[in-house]
Amino acid sequence: MSVFDKAIDLHPVGDSLFRGSTVPEWANMVGPFGGITAAALVRAIQLHPQCHGEPISLTVNYVAPIADGDFDVATKHVRTNRSNQHWIIEQSQGGEVKTTATAVFGVRRDTWADAEATPPAAPDPEGLEQAASPLTWFTNYDIRYVDGAVPAMDGTESASSTTTLWARNNPPRPLDYAALTAVSDVFFPRVFLRRGQFIPAGTVTLAVYFHAGDEQITAAGDDFILGTARAHQFTRGYFDQTAHLWSRGGVPLVTSHQYVYFKG
Amino acid sequence: MSVFDKAIDLHPVGDSLFRGSTVPEWANMVGPFGGITAAALVRAIQLHPQCHGEPISLTVNYVAPIADGDFDVATKHVRTNRSNQHWIIEQSQGGEVKTTATAVFGVRRDTWADAEATPPAAPDPEGLEQAASPLTWFTNYDIRYVDGAVPAMDGTESASSTTTLWARNNPPRPLDYAALTAVSDVFFPRVFLRRGQFIPAGTVTLAVYFHAGDEQITAAGDDFILGTARAHQFTRGYFDQTAHLWSRGGVPLVTSHQYVYFKG
Repeated sequence: MSVFDKAIDLHPVGDSLFRGSTVPEWANMVGPFGGITAAALVRAIQLHPQCHGEPISLTVNYVAPIADGDFDVATKHVRTNRSNQHWIIEQSQGGEVKTTATAVFGVRRDTWADAEATPPAAPDPEGLEQAASPLTWFTNYDIRYVDGAVPAMDGTESASSTTTLWARNNPPRPLDYAALTAVSDVFFPRVFLRRGQFIPAGTVTLAVYFHAGDEQITAAGDDFILGTARAHQFTRGYFDQTAHLWSRGGVPLVTSHQYVYFKG
Repeated sequence: MSVFDKAIDLHPVGDSLFRGSTVPEWANMVGPFGGITAAALVRAIQLHPQCHGEPISLTVNYVAPIADGDFDVATKHVRTNRSNQHWIIEQSQGGEVKTTATAVFGVRRDTWADAEATPPAAPDPEGLEQAASPLTWFTNYDIRYVDGAVPAMDGTESASSTTTLWARNNPPRPLDYAALTAVSDVFFPRVFLRRGQFIPAGTVTLAVYFHAGDEQITAAGDDFILGTARAHQFTRGYFDQTAHLWSRGGVPLVTSHQYVYFKG
């Protein structure tokens, strides 16, 4: 089983309750990479016998640091409508809530469609260097920066918070909703880029809007996906971060937003 | 009491449980305007004795239509950390959940700040016409479109989903977090603009990231605020919509995002 699949490997331990364990290979500075936590919550809903349809939207709130070891995911089915389904999720350890989430699942249909935001120009990933990072979880991705790579941390400020990158699970693994959820959080905090230095920062809340259905996700395969992220406002201890992800073929996969706490 | 204040007028009816009533003046096509529902949920947290600090982020999921009459808001305090506080909210009628939400409150501090997104150019609202609408709730706002007004619904498509507008409570009312929450949902569905026609559409999930603190909100007073909204992707029955709001003086107030169901 891959390190990714280990991290989202849950088993039922009660009515609507699933248990998993943190995986050391996903360690971030404090607790696991937020994206892998979000992926495990999506997987928990998918394992629920009442789950119907595909993920439409997900909001994850990072309440408290997750310790190494087992965690429980309580999945509350709120309501199933004709075309969608609502969930409330709580991830806990030893009875303490560590993460909360809400999710909408649904059955999608073909409609009028239009891509008003289009992928940024980017050279093929094969000609770009694979990025390195001291963070443990980062080795689970093959990241190739097109623009706005992690700065030298020498205090050189940037006028733009935009990062564009290619990302692929390492080792390669076919895309699914869990993997797509995780990779939507793959961008380092935008404040690093603006200020040219390491600044303590942590995501408070993450929203993922899924544009791709099963068919688009299957077509994306295990190839690189293209993502671009930027901030709009840095104010009084928080900044926002919006990311758009496309398949290599230019199919929109996900728009994600987060609000991030930062110090100083 | 103003029509706005009536709609967010809640009273405690149990442990962490508050009751309010829908107000006919806020009627939308089905149930009340989504923004006023979101505002009532913020108000419920503010009324909770454990509430600490100001709203930082809010996610509201519209689960089922709200009927005319009383509703209950159950506020679950999840955890208070050193600098923030997490909540889970359920709004129900007759035991049926109609809306779910999560919120982060917190104490904000002055930090490095920068506005990477700046307000669009706009003439003063006084020189623009007050917009009309057949929707009941719309009369509670003085809306003046700068760009991307509600189209003629004659099928003339637009290449852009952007609307820029001035908005003010009608009658004028000093801004607070509840009013700011409501107005962040004031933009009509972007698909109307793109397709030049009325298309059944409804918000599934709304996220609000609050940039303004008490001081900035007080300074905004009861004046017009400037907002701009656009979509990025219309795909398979859903589109996203991102809005940025500023005070008349150009202070960032809110970034909000929503994912919207549409038909055809």
